[in-house]
Amino acid sequence: MEYYSKQIAKLIESLSRLPGIGSKTAQRLAFHVLSMPKEEVEDLAFSLTDAREHVRYCKECLTLTDEEVCPICSNPNRDHRQIMVVENTRDLVAYEKTGRYNGVYHVLHGAISPMLGIGPEDIRLKELLVRLQQDVDEVIIATNSSIEGEATAMYISRLVKPTGIRVTRIASGVPVGGDIEYIDEVTLLRALEGRTEL
Amino acid sequence: MEYYSKQIAKLIESLSRLPGIGSKTAQRLAFHVLSMPKEEVEDLAFSLTDAREHVRYCKECLTLTDEEVCPICSNPNRDHRQIMVVENTRDLVAYEKTGRYNGVYHVLHGAISPMLGIGPEDIRLKELLVRLQQDVDEVIIATNSSIEGEATAMYISRLVKPTGIRVTRIASGVPVGGDIEYIDEVTLLRALEGRTEL
Repeated sequence: MEYYSKQIAKLIESLSRLPGIGSKTAQRLAFHVLSMPKEEVEDLAFSLTDAREHVRYCKECLTLTDEEVCPICSNPNRDHRQIMVVENTRDLVAYEKTGRYNGVYHVLHGAISPMLGIGPEDIRLKELLVRLQQDVDEVIIATNSSIEGEATAMYISRLVKPTGIRVTRIASGVPVGGDIEYIDEVTLLRALEGRTEL
Repeated sequence: MEYYSKQIAKLIESLSRLPGIGSKTAQRLAFHVLSMPKEEVEDLAFSLTDAREHVRYCKECLTLTDEEVCPICSNPNRDHRQIMVVENTRDLVAYEKTGRYNGVYHVLHGAISPMLGIGPEDIRLKELLVRLQQDVDEVIIATNSSIEGEATAMYISRLVKPTGIRVTRIASGVPVGGDIEYIDEVTLLRALEGRTEL
């Protein structure tokens, strides 16, 4: 590419390796970066390496954090007897944003997927079982309602039930504001099966 | 945001300041960065600062480059008597990708826009006039066919015409593969006005 300078070509190439960033978007971002004040670019570059450098897994729930124990696990006001199992930190954040869940979490960092060759030993299940040896009232399984998420939920429930701890699964159904006309049959069937008394 | 570690929150915030990157995308990108090998993250960070550090304007055409004179302007096989005026380096690249233009360019870095308070003195017009004192046969105006692009084209043509140099404007019309049914009236009218003999 004669028309780009070496560094610009390299920058576009680096940016286009990020997920969801095609070559057009990478080009647009690169030219934006070139027009940004130098300090802001340095700040962005620092944020990238700094976050990557310092991030680690919480000793308790395995979420991504910068401390040994994450702020949720170290908060004495949260109910440590209620553990919500999620696939990743993004899902944890989604539930935190509801502002209504007061228990703690367990982050699996994946879901069981025979298709992708991800077995129970590849996700953080052992750590969950260790935590269940402490005083736990309930395990809420909040894996995705995809095939992998459902398989993982089934697997966990089978592991946990013998311990006598209550195991629940978040409800599956029509999303709030969802238009029934556009919702797939499986979801509609789930919504019907999961109907509650009014 | 208690649920993110400081560095992750900072990274998401930095990424979401980029154009077209909303908070959800920034979050997705941030978590991708955290899962990338450290060297790749450092490489990306370096690309950002390196490009921003070394980029400068070509002494001739003012495109963004890393050399004093860009590869296009320093290429003796290109026709230096034909200058295509574009709004920015991205537009230059778009024309270079056609692989069929053999002249040189002039990058304005903007377009005249009374709405945004951008006047003729705010874009690189003076530099164009200086270049026209050398031997030039034709100025091809390839600004966008937006209101600003058209205003800029009109302005440039009025400046250049008195010098006797030929001034042309790229054609406006139905894009190749475009469906007439979905094309706006102004474009259709332009296509009609610009019709050519078969």
